Amino acid sequence: MAYTFHNSKELFRRAARVIPQGIYGHLTPVFTVPGSYPYFGAKAQGCRFIDVDGNEYIDYLCAYGPMILGYAHKKIDQAYYAQVKNGTCTSVAPALCVELAERLVATIDCADWALFAKNGADTTSIALVLARGYTARNKIVLAHDGYHGSQPWAGTNTVGITPADRSDFILMPWGDIDSFKGLVEKYQDEIAGVMLTPYHHPVFADQRLPEKNYFSEIRSLCDRYGIVLIIDDIRAGWRLDLKGSAHYFGFKPDLACFSKAMANGYPISAIVGSEKMRITASKTYAAGTFWFNSGEMAAALACIDEMERIDAPSILKERGEMLVQGLQDLASSHGLHVTVSGPPAMPFMRFSNETNFMRSQLFCGECARNGVFFHPHHNWFLSTAHTKRDIRQTLDVADRAFKAVKKHFGE
Amino acid sequence: MAYTFHNSKELFRRAARVIPQGIYGHLTPVFTVPGSYPYFGAKAQGCRFIDVDGNEYIDYLCAYGPMILGYAHKKIDQAYYAQVKNGTCTSVAPALCVELAERLVATIDCADWALFAKNGADTTSIALVLARGYTARNKIVLAHDGYHGSQPWAGTNTVGITPADRSDFILMPWGDIDSFKGLVEKYQDEIAGVMLTPYHHPVFADQRLPEKNYFSEIRSLCDRYGIVLIIDDIRAGWRLDLKGSAHYFGFKPDLACFSKAMANGYPISAIVGSEKMRITASKTYAAGTFWFNSGEMAAALACIDEMERIDAPSILKERGEMLVQGLQDLASSHGLHVTVSGPPAMPFMRFSNETNFMRSQLFCGECARNGVFFHPHHNWFLSTAHTKRDIRQTLDVADRAFKAVKKHFGE
Repeated sequence: MAYTFHNSKELFRRAARVIPQGIYGHLTPVFTVPGSYPYFGAKAQGCRFIDVDGNEYIDYLCAYGPMILGYAHKKIDQAYYAQVKNGTCTSVAPALCVELAERLVATIDCADWALFAKNGADTTSIALVLARGYTARNKIVLAHDGYHGSQPWAGTNTVGITPADRSDFILMPWGDIDSFKGLVEKYQDEIAGVMLTPYHHPVFADQRLPEKNYFSEIRSLCDRYGIVLIIDDIRAGWRLDLKGSAHYFGFKPDLACFSKAMANGYPISAIVGSEKMRITASKTYAAGTFWFNSGEMAAALACIDEMERIDAPSILKERGEMLVQGLQDLASSHGLHVTVSGPPAMPFMRFSNETNFMRSQLFCGECARNGVFFHPHHNWFLSTAHTKRDIRQTLDVADRAFKAVKKHFGE
Repeated sequence: MAYTFHNSKELFRRAARVIPQGIYGHLTPVFTVPGSYPYFGAKAQGCRFIDVDGNEYIDYLCAYGPMILGYAHKKIDQAYYAQVKNGTCTSVAPALCVELAERLVATIDCADWALFAKNGADTTSIALVLARGYTARNKIVLAHDGYHGSQPWAGTNTVGITPADRSDFILMPWGDIDSFKGLVEKYQDEIAGVMLTPYHHPVFADQRLPEKNYFSEIRSLCDRYGIVLIIDDIRAGWRLDLKGSAHYFGFKPDLACFSKAMANGYPISAIVGSEKMRITASKTYAAGTFWFNSGEMAAALACIDEMERIDAPSILKERGEMLVQGLQDLASSHGLHVTVSGPPAMPFMRFSNETNFMRSQLFCGECARNGVFFHPHHNWFLSTAHTKRDIRQTLDVADRAFKAVKKHFGE
């Protein structure tokens, strides 16, 4: 019996009266498969959540990244509670901020210091300021289809943007060293920084890992032309390598941005930097009311402890490989062709012989209505709470969904 | 026995190695009185906190606004915990977001809809986008010395800012209707919006309440020239009037930004708007990983419930008046002249016959080293946890601090 969404729809009607779009941002239902996905959740535990109609899902979005150890994780929640009992948002800094900064510096390969904020986007925006302050230049190079937040400069919103918002940005294709070479030669002393994700995770497209020398060449061009290299590790951070995804791919950025999985869902972000950026960071005024909240810092420390203790990246890799291999085998068994891209901890699957994502919509919709929460055009996330048994159950559902795709579209 | 800060200093030395400035943003020690204030807190409860040296303070900063009901408030914390046990940051929106949006629309006078974010600054930045999207114009009018966050456009940071960051902004003096009239006549069809705080709360200066017709004239000029009126109620919101500070001062903005006291310290912010802004808000892509976290939403609902139940603004006014009157009487009794400005719930006191804040530094330093946490050049905040007894104790400490000021500076 496939799921129905009566309560979700009722609630969405109420939502539409008091919230523009009903649900906005990345959670908006128009981004998944209208009619096949729940709009509202009621309860989440481990790798599963239950929606407001009582339907249960094995969740491969993990809140779009933050949930890395499982929802409602006791150790992390208890660390949070224990801290909050003594106050979380206070008039002076908590002792815990020193402990967490020391921990990030000890853990993340490129970090000599750390600043805390709330959103990932707070840190990408601060990174621009630091690169510009350090170089006394204005231009920032970004990759087409890179995601760094919804703030005006980041290019994901089209309404209410002024020409000035984006006048200091230059776009290039991710992964193409010649493009970057061309830009630095053309603009040399105008480029303050280049901000890239450690691997390319666009929506509606295959993910791409960096070619062998991509980042070492980026690094040496940055050094040669005095450009600050910024890695936006907000989405991938903590899933590939606890020392940072840059470490995983073998290079050192000057600045790196972290958030999402850092505290298993508690709102915190951090920008870390190398020694050479410290004085500029010290001269910058960056502030937010909740940026020193100690509860989120306690959660981050507990989360990093736990990720280290269990070696989270190796578990995510193993489970991801099991999922990805299983999906590929199933697709073949039905005579279907799928392309799986990206690291197994954060895979993306599409049907190889289509560009309109119709098969993906049908496949993901079938999966959702049978208890497996994938996304048709955004990368997925594994958590350490996804057991082998969960993945086997997932593959059973996927098998029937592939069958539906074959029935509807043929091979 | 005045306080000493051995552990604070030790910890600060550690902090300085891993955090630029040691402590940054509004919590940086250089903003208070170096040597007289603690750097790090250990525990906060009610209206008090204890620093890492065991010194206790009656706190009139209230975390710079968020703490309105007392630190570690059981009802709010329990509402948060109860929600978090079922997951907080999840892959679909929580049912609670509808309840909270409905509540804001029912509570805040100018609200026909609400969007949630994390930082206050998220909402002021979204407000600019909405004003520009609605009007298809670029320029935004701000007041000199108004605070809307530390993002590049907001003017509080000077390092790493590009000309483009501020090219679409026009500054005017807060409270001067002729200046605004002059600007709208000069720029008329170029001005998208004007963003103002509901009363003026600069640092290093007296606070100013709006004159009788200021906002009604702003409102009618905005209507006449098609300009979006945005109120940044992040600092004052919830302390003057639960329907919003604009309601308190008798006018309706098109957009209003709230955060700080909305959830008693849990990180959440909201932008609310009038009907006419709804379609623009629906067309805008605004997203943050943690913006739909249900824990913070549960805390906000519990906080609004409690503020309504006890009529928080009336308590804050009464306690604020007692503090302010007491300070003025004490100053007079020592032959000193102080100027107290702003609403009693958020007062600011300075010594009338100085502009360099030396007396304020000595006064606040003396108070801090004797257990009362004021700020020499930033407005203070009352909470409902400040009892009459706390205020009497505060005035005892202030009496001795005034005496020290008189001894050092004369009358």
